[in-house]
Amino acid sequence: MTVVVQNISRPDPATVAGLAECGVSTVHEAQGRKGLLASYMRPIYAGARVAGAAVTISCPPGDNWMFHVAIEQVKAGDIVVMAPTSPCEDGYFGDLLATSLKARGGAGLVIEAGVRDVRDLTAMQFPVWSRAIYAAGTVKETLGSINVPVVCAGQLVNPGDVIIADDDGVCVVRREEADGVLEKARARTAAEEDKRRRLAAGELGLDIYDMRGRLAAKGLKYV
Amino acid sequence: MTVVVQNISRPDPATVAGLAECGVSTVHEAQGRKGLLASYMRPIYAGARVAGAAVTISCPPGDNWMFHVAIEQVKAGDIVVMAPTSPCEDGYFGDLLATSLKARGGAGLVIEAGVRDVRDLTAMQFPVWSRAIYAAGTVKETLGSINVPVVCAGQLVNPGDVIIADDDGVCVVRREEADGVLEKARARTAAEEDKRRRLAAGELGLDIYDMRGRLAAKGLKYV
Amino acid sequence: MTVVVQNISRPDPATVAGLAECGVSTVHEAQGRKGLLASYMRPIYAGARVAGAAVTISCPPGDNWMFHVAIEQVKAGDIVVMAPTSPCEDGYFGDLLATSLKARGGAGLVIEAGVRDVRDLTAMQFPVWSRAIYAAGTVKETLGSINVPVVCAGQLVNPGDVIIADDDGVCVVRREEADGVLEKARARTAAEEDKRRRLAAGELGLDIYDMRGRLAAKGLKYV
Amino acid sequence: MTVVVQNISRPDPATVAGLAECGVSTVHEAQGRKGLLASYMRPIYAGARVAGAAVTISCPPGDNWMFHVAIEQVKAGDIVVMAPTSPCEDGYFGDLLATSLKARGGAGLVIEAGVRDVRDLTAMQFPVWSRAIYAAGTVKETLGSINVPVVCAGQLVNPGDVIIADDDGVCVVRREEADGVLEKARARTAAEEDKRRRLAAGELGLDIYDMRGRLAAKGLKYV
Amino acid sequence: MTVVVQNISRPDPATVAGLAECGVSTVHEAQGRKGLLASYMRPIYAGARVAGAAVTISCPPGDNWMFHVAIEQVKAGDIVVMAPTSPCEDGYFGDLLATSLKARGGAGLVIEAGVRDVRDLTAMQFPVWSRAIYAAGTVKETLGSINVPVVCAGQLVNPGDVIIADDDGVCVVRREEADGVLEKARARTAAEEDKRRRLAAGELGLDIYDMRGRLAAKGLKYV
Amino acid sequence: MTVVVQNISRPDPATVAGLAECGVSTVHEAQGRKGLLASYMRPIYAGARVAGAAVTISCPPGDNWMFHVAIEQVKAGDIVVMAPTSPCEDGYFGDLLATSLKARGGAGLVIEAGVRDVRDLTAMQFPVWSRAIYAAGTVKETLGSINVPVVCAGQLVNPGDVIIADDDGVCVVRREEADGVLEKARARTAAEEDKRRRLAAGELGLDIYDMRGRLAAKGLKYV
Repeated sequence: MTVVVQNISRPDPATVAGLAECGVSTVHEAQGRKGLLASYMRPIYAGARVAGAAVTISCPPGDNWMFHVAIEQVKAGDIVVMAPTSPCEDGYFGDLLATSLKARGGAGLVIEAGVRDVRDLTAMQFPVWSRAIYAAGTVKETLGSINVPVVCAGQLVNPGDVIIADDDGVCVVRREEADGVLEKARARTAAEEDKRRRLAAGELGLDIYDMRGRLAAKGLKYV
Repeated sequence: MTVVVQNISRPDPATVAGLAECGVSTVHEAQGRKGLLASYMRPIYAGARVAGAAVTISCPPGDNWMFHVAIEQVKAGDIVVMAPTSPCEDGYFGDLLATSLKARGGAGLVIEAGVRDVRDLTAMQFPVWSRAIYAAGTVKETLGSINVPVVCAGQLVNPGDVIIADDDGVCVVRREEADGVLEKARARTAAEEDKRRRLAAGELGLDIYDMRGRLAAKGLKYV
Repeated sequence: MTVVVQNISRPDPATVAGLAECGVSTVHEAQGRKGLLASYMRPIYAGARVAGAAVTISCPPGDNWMFHVAIEQVKAGDIVVMAPTSPCEDGYFGDLLATSLKARGGAGLVIEAGVRDVRDLTAMQFPVWSRAIYAAGTVKETLGSINVPVVCAGQLVNPGDVIIADDDGVCVVRREEADGVLEKARARTAAEEDKRRRLAAGELGLDIYDMRGRLAAKGLKYV
Repeated sequence: MTVVVQNISRPDPATVAGLAECGVSTVHEAQGRKGLLASYMRPIYAGARVAGAAVTISCPPGDNWMFHVAIEQVKAGDIVVMAPTSPCEDGYFGDLLATSLKARGGAGLVIEAGVRDVRDLTAMQFPVWSRAIYAAGTVKETLGSINVPVVCAGQLVNPGDVIIADDDGVCVVRREEADGVLEKARARTAAEEDKRRRLAAGELGLDIYDMRGRLAAKGLKYV
Repeated sequence: MTVVVQNISRPDPATVAGLAECGVSTVHEAQGRKGLLASYMRPIYAGARVAGAAVTISCPPGDNWMFHVAIEQVKAGDIVVMAPTSPCEDGYFGDLLATSLKARGGAGLVIEAGVRDVRDLTAMQFPVWSRAIYAAGTVKETLGSINVPVVCAGQLVNPGDVIIADDDGVCVVRREEADGVLEKARARTAAEEDKRRRLAAGELGLDIYDMRGRLAAKGLKYV
Repeated sequence: MTVVVQNISRPDPATVAGLAECGVSTVHEAQGRKGLLASYMRPIYAGARVAGAAVTISCPPGDNWMFHVAIEQVKAGDIVVMAPTSPCEDGYFGDLLATSLKARGGAGLVIEAGVRDVRDLTAMQFPVWSRAIYAAGTVKETLGSINVPVVCAGQLVNPGDVIIADDDGVCVVRREEADGVLEKARARTAAEEDKRRRLAAGELGLDIYDMRGRLAAKGLKYV
């Protein structure tokens, strides 16, 4: 029941970097509008945009013992993803754990619970996406698991999947689909460039996307 | 059922500018505490304060097709107000639509749903008040209407009504009442100036507003 | 039923200053994980960290009359704590009351309701923790009480208790326990310093806290 | 600002009775999916299904004075619709007001706030749809208005509009559209009868509605 | 920190029985509109109305060990009141604990967390007011306290205070105020009897309470 | 992207029947406290207890077209599990679909969205667990998938997994683990029988489970 999986496959770092550059909204569209975590997962400060391989934690409610176990499993660039086994907003993670996770190369945290010491985390520029900011501490009494599949904020996250997170929220991309998604995301970004230029010049989407005929066919009336 | 109303009456631009200067809280008081949208309508970044005539959109849930139709109807200084026909937090609006809306002179967006690309929108300083930040995209399959009365976040908004929005939230003023409300709001602002000065000097509201007698009459006891 | 208690005992200012320095999360841990207000109490702007003696207000819903009564009772460094007698998110407090409260030496406000004029409050750097930002005004018709025990956001607050508030939220410390809590909070801060240094150097919590044996005894398996 | 409108136009009682028989979901579909109040409006007991002309109340938060004024305006079969001017869950209405309202012929209450004495109301079989059940009482200090347009749970309700309410929630139909909506609702009910019979016999919607071709055209794959 | 207080003062059983008869809404009014728990505390089945002395439990989140300790402290007619030290909706209590609590004379449970086996509890007619129905189990690892003051759903509850609970929610009355509150509640009930009869006969509250003059004085206009 | 998987493995009907008998809370404990859907999934009427193999639907928000496709895939005893691809509370399912699903042998519905016609569904005794009751209709424009893994109310559900649902909520058991879980659930039920009898006779859990020593060792003090 409680297990630490030590060897997980990680995505290609170049792919991860590419996905970070594209951002959550573009990646989400590029992979067919799937993998988006619930909107209550918000960054503790604005402006961060990261991607990384998921190291997952399944924790009991109110017990953060497994964070210490998880950090040993983290490699440079990983993002820790934590989901409690029942709903909890306690502050599992603060500046000491962030110091440790950062020292091991961790690139961020996505946590369906609370986080604390957000002033320090902001000063360290250690990015966290959480469900709550809450100072309530936790105990270290009950085991959980590391690197098992978890459901976090409504999405299945497997260890080694790619997590992309920015001001729009958090998206997960399956490790084995990451290269394909990146390709589509880049194509999308490129295609948008021309449209953005035309829209900025005052052209209408109605004309650029040639929508007038289909709107009329559906019955739109101008009065 | 689905219609685009092309000619709407707009308020006097000078009135609109005056209301923007007064801000949401003062305008709300000045018009007798009505017209305030629900508190879940929050700005995507702090510090914006705008006013404009409402161009309204009624959209199906998860379908942003009508935004393209709406933008053609926007004139300089207008604020787009969107309400879905059933509750939805999808990201109807992102940086491409913002580029287009801004190019046509749009001054802001009030949306009872989600918005995305908030990092880009912040960089563009295009102000949005929304119910959620959420990257989930939408389809373009079903029609809605433009410039019909909508209920947005608990308030009726008619096309051409004045929308005032800042860090306190969003308020709607009927077009035909706008001049009178501005007058009262300015009077209020002027009257507050003297009170602010006296309060800042340490005088008490109890004395400035002459409250002690009425408090005693109501039965307040000091112990 | 309605009463203004004029003489309350306040904690030692040096203790209060010390607790402010330690911050909410450390103080909450130091006093045995009690006294934390609900996580929906959020600061209106980031970065403030204050502590002060509580001057409490119990108000009817939608009626802010007692704020004027309370301000007369405030001494330099106090923090006003307001709880309505039934749930309400109206904007009880804005820039005029803030000007008055600041002029009397008030150090902040904790309010289980709404607040408005947040742009002005931010410009004044007058810190507020609230449940909502909402422009809806209030009346002055019904009495409440000043400096009686109130339950605010799930915690009992007595007049004269110490309130600590920062980006992590709000914590209350009983006046008579404040010196002991400060001592423990400082010890905790000192003890964390060494751990932070070791964690920053890449040492693992597993080793620093000597957890491996106990984890194995509980049955943790590595695969 | 505060006004009691005494003469309102009411819909034809036969139309109202017909709409009650059709129920909320059918009426909502029949009028083109509009007019549905938010899903948080729930009946205090299961099984009631009523319709009536709306007598509207706009109340200050926490003040139920206007209920007494409203009851004088109620005619047999009317449904009272109350919306507070800012969000409130206080118990505006209990068994005494229900006794009075029932005695005057009132058929039900729709209230975007709290209600109390629900055991008595259930025993009386006086149907109420509310946002909350909450015993908190209210004061009688501030005026509101009767029979003005209100926004209740996200929908505009004019005095004299038809309210239909049952276990599915609450729907409003414009008075002047009521006859047409009833016709469509009855047609819909009739048309469903045949479909229900065929579906009950095990025929598939795929075949009854002839969907297979369009699904294939859209790209549906069976594996 | 963790303590079991064994001797608590309980209210007079006749007073408790009298308060049960009056019900939550009447008692809440009678004691000046205080002591009402938040509206999210709902009964698991309709129709129960109980009162009893509070035996309080303060539990860690997700840990129900202290329930076993509490049950030994329960005397006939007591109501157990549980508040977790941080928010939690786990199912602390099910049919085995209910069997045990009932066997010891416990009259009900008020719990700011989850409850499970609600079908069995309903069949047993063991009344529970809770924040959630949730099957998630709990551990038995960490201590809490019995019969200390707790804040439950926004209200302070001392051991031995009177809890009244019915379909309207839950109200707490201070033990030392219980006799006085009962007297006022009974007076209120008696006074309402005459009003109910007159209202049922069609008389208006406007006349019974003589409101017309004051309404006019406040400026109410009939049109 | 959109696919209908026609052949899925189903669990042994005897196992399914056994799990239904044990109920959600017992099954959830028996499988190590996993698989429980979020507490907002509530039955539309009290008293139902069912189990069945999951036939899953992934739908776009506000589009119920795939229900018709799904019903063809249902075999006797199956439970349909629907999760929208972004949050939605529209009423996807009403009495016509229920008539069809029941005619094909469907045993229930679990839907992370809205349902309507609940009076009819109750009369038919067709059990549904949903996030909302809401009459808002849906369109039939966009495809989804049948019998793919979905995340519903925070839990991964694979087609063919066992769904158990009753008044406590909804739990999912992996198909391949179902036999083992049933064995443990039955053992648990048997073991509880003796405890229930002893507890009903007034014996304390403290003694039955031999807790006094461990409580004392942890430091519990009686005063």
